[in-house]
Amino acid sequence: MDISGWRKKIDDLDEQIVQLISQRAQAAKAIGELKRKTQSPVYEPDREQAVFNHIRGANPGPLADGEMLHVYERIIDVMRTLQRREE
Amino acid sequence: MDISGWRKKIDDLDEQIVQLISQRAQAAKAIGELKRKTQSPVYEPDREQAVFNHIRGANPGPLADGEMLHVYERIIDVMRTLQRREE
Repeated sequence: MDISGWRKKIDDLDEQIVQLISQRAQAAKAIGELKRKTQSPVYEPDREQAVFNHIRGANPGPLADGEMLHVYERIIDVMRTLQRREE
Repeated sequence: MDISGWRKKIDDLDEQIVQLISQRAQAAKAIGELKRKTQSPVYEPDREQAVFNHIRGANPGPLADGEMLHVYERIIDVMRTLQRREE
């Protein structure tokens, strides 16, 4: 496959990734609303650690675990902002 | 759905997201190898801009475009490192 074929594949993957991150954001938003009702804190270090462990276990490569976690730190960061923002 | 139900959903989504990011990394790695053969630069600002435009167009919410792009900046950053690393 040439570079333009691989780029087409990347574009297809990106559409799926954006959809899944958006579904993840919907779920985080729902959790944020439930937390607000029960006056629970948005930041829960134990849960975040469990998410990172899960990611590490699910990573097949070629990215190193640290690289995949680097991406996920950003995902979690954006989700936490969303949970704080929504009323 | 309660918080633990939403968390189960997030765990399922994370497994899919990790798989797709890994497939994207495989494609980026293949492109890196093709670029090396043709001695092309790893960093191509026009292509990165096209990726960001594509992400913006594919984003259904609830994340703002800027938030989704914030996640993608990290994805692209990690992929660029991978392209430079592989021999």
